[in-house]
Amino acid sequence: MKAISILGSTGSIGCNALKVVEHLGDYRVVALGAGRNMAKLAEQTARFQPELVSVENEDCAETFLREFHKLGGGAAPKIETGEKGLIAIATHEAAETIVSATVGAIGFVPTLRAIEAGKRIALANKETLVMAGELMTKAAAASGAELLPVDSEHNALHQCLRGETKKEVKRLILTASGGPFRTKSRLEIENATREQALNHPNWKMGDKITIDSATLMNKGLEVIEARWLFDFPAEEIGVVVHPQSVVHSMIEMVDGSIIAQLGVTDMKHAIQYALTFPERQPNCLEPLDFRKISQLTFEEPDMEKFPCLALAYKALKIGGTMPAALNAANEIAVQAFLDDKIRLSEIPKIIEFVMNRHQPQPVSNLEIVLETDAQARKNAIISLEKSALATKI
Amino acid sequence: MKAISILGSTGSIGCNALKVVEHLGDYRVVALGAGRNMAKLAEQTARFQPELVSVENEDCAETFLREFHKLGGGAAPKIETGEKGLIAIATHEAAETIVSATVGAIGFVPTLRAIEAGKRIALANKETLVMAGELMTKAAAASGAELLPVDSEHNALHQCLRGETKKEVKRLILTASGGPFRTKSRLEIENATREQALNHPNWKMGDKITIDSATLMNKGLEVIEARWLFDFPAEEIGVVVHPQSVVHSMIEMVDGSIIAQLGVTDMKHAIQYALTFPERQPNCLEPLDFRKISQLTFEEPDMEKFPCLALAYKALKIGGTMPAALNAANEIAVQAFLDDKIRLSEIPKIIEFVMNRHQPQPVSNLEIVLETDAQARKNAIISLEKSALATKI
Repeated sequence: MKAISILGSTGSIGCNALKVVEHLGDYRVVALGAGRNMAKLAEQTARFQPELVSVENEDCAETFLREFHKLGGGAAPKIETGEKGLIAIATHEAAETIVSATVGAIGFVPTLRAIEAGKRIALANKETLVMAGELMTKAAAASGAELLPVDSEHNALHQCLRGETKKEVKRLILTASGGPFRTKSRLEIENATREQALNHPNWKMGDKITIDSATLMNKGLEVIEARWLFDFPAEEIGVVVHPQSVVHSMIEMVDGSIIAQLGVTDMKHAIQYALTFPERQPNCLEPLDFRKISQLTFEEPDMEKFPCLALAYKALKIGGTMPAALNAANEIAVQAFLDDKIRLSEIPKIIEFVMNRHQPQPVSNLEIVLETDAQARKNAIISLEKSALATKI
Repeated sequence: MKAISILGSTGSIGCNALKVVEHLGDYRVVALGAGRNMAKLAEQTARFQPELVSVENEDCAETFLREFHKLGGGAAPKIETGEKGLIAIATHEAAETIVSATVGAIGFVPTLRAIEAGKRIALANKETLVMAGELMTKAAAASGAELLPVDSEHNALHQCLRGETKKEVKRLILTASGGPFRTKSRLEIENATREQALNHPNWKMGDKITIDSATLMNKGLEVIEARWLFDFPAEEIGVVVHPQSVVHSMIEMVDGSIIAQLGVTDMKHAIQYALTFPERQPNCLEPLDFRKISQLTFEEPDMEKFPCLALAYKALKIGGTMPAALNAANEIAVQAFLDDKIRLSEIPKIIEFVMNRHQPQPVSNLEIVLETDAQARKNAIISLEKSALATKI
């Protein structure tokens, strides 16, 4: 039995991770961390019987206990709250593998602690590497922690790179679906509703990442993530728009050969890969059926229509704390869009405002990153208020 | 300097192999074997100065010398003839790598001798494995010879398999362009001219293999070849028609993941890979440009319209000497088609006639294979004469 903890168990990745664990059979869930979805966490707790759960605050803890007892699940687990709770889950002594699947910056410190504790990290929380890739990868090198990417693109790159020598890889090629606005005009994107932006053509994911997919910021964050996961410079990480999302990503070798990973669009594949690596095991998914693939197409991303992607490349090239500032500004802006406070097209403007105000510094310690994050959020809110005022939403 | 010999140097693969050797720079060509194209061999000899050349017979040798002296190339190399000559090339003491690129059964014994001598074999002569895969792979295991496939499909499979564990591979998927008659009706195929059949949509290759591509026998022979190169049973080797020939082949893993190799349609890629493996080196080809790929499509092969593919699977499942009989019958039938003696649709009929008359035996030694080959050719000629008589060509 392998022991596993999940940070963000009630989210899309977390729920899928539990399905994978059930399918694989030889896993014991020792700890679950959730935010506010207490009904779901109670259900998961009754089913998987973790020793420890973590919730956002004391109110949530009460709600959790009420929901848990409603299910008649027997003895309640130990309950912790807030970041302290997530850190307890991330560093739980028994857990060999931590699924890091919280959304946004909240998972940052707990994931770092798990890395320092030498765990295997099934990493879905991309902010971790975007905010402080250098810190994280140095900590992993020091502790021997393994970082296994759970998003489909980096997971695909990990698979493609298995048999190859790094110096013979010319570039990484991330595929992007292009999101729901790929074929739309600038004006249509400007006026896109929350519902339109949340209507991703291929993937069922959480709200934040779905909006990031609509702006292509998701791909930008993935470029930054790839830089740290695989140690390639920005110039050697390309993006190709591939609307069918069948090819999950590719690598180009020095001899011109392209190695690609293809599969169904279900996160359970990447999650299972990260758990069982270096082994592969049969999973519970339908295999890719080539008879059903009518066609695969590829096109270049339009950086003018989707300025978030260009901003992410820019932040990566500037380096230091700039990607952390970009990430924080994006989180604030996306939440504002989800709250109907701004238009979709304001998101890159807010990020640009924050980046222009940010003086990048080397990522030498955790404090600098957290300070950057806090300052960028403040500046994002300043920009947001200006936008909201201007557009009178 | 690495030393290399080429069997079939004046053919399509041979000429490309010499271009790759020139590009790589650190190779010495020690021996060249050709058939009857003496002008080309003389030119190659003047340029690469091998110690030894082999030609079909004494008349060819005279022609070669005349052509060679016309070029003022200095001292002539040692000249040998016939199978003995090809064997001398295949086992040349100085040669570390042998490119086995003769067309048809003629390369069979020389390639076996090179395998027994423990050389690295860059294998383009697919008949070698089709006729006697078991003998060849046993000989390679005994001598430590490495078999590196040079045709694009198996080369792609070799690349895909680099980082994987065999027991985790569910199946190999060979892609097939579908040839020039993919979208044609049975009647159109029946009445196809030599020129139509030689007009391959994606690949520039020799005549024999181009006809095999038109009948899908080429894919059938590749299925048999894959069985021996990678040790997978027929049931675990699939074929997908992919008319654009961008995806050169794929593997499906037990977890449903597909690993694919994509590239430009130029044999020089696979040849260079086979020479430099396990290293990859920059080559002289334009990289694959995703902006130029309008679409990639996939469909199932039509075994009724292309019975040669079904016959190859059948021969592989029967096993023993049956694939050798299929191969011999196909060679006779294709030559007859190229000589305008039969229609394209007679090719599978001749093969079926030969297979029905053949009593398969275990491939326990070389003689059995050669005997099968000879007997199958005789039977193919019998069938051919019947067909020719019937169609009054």
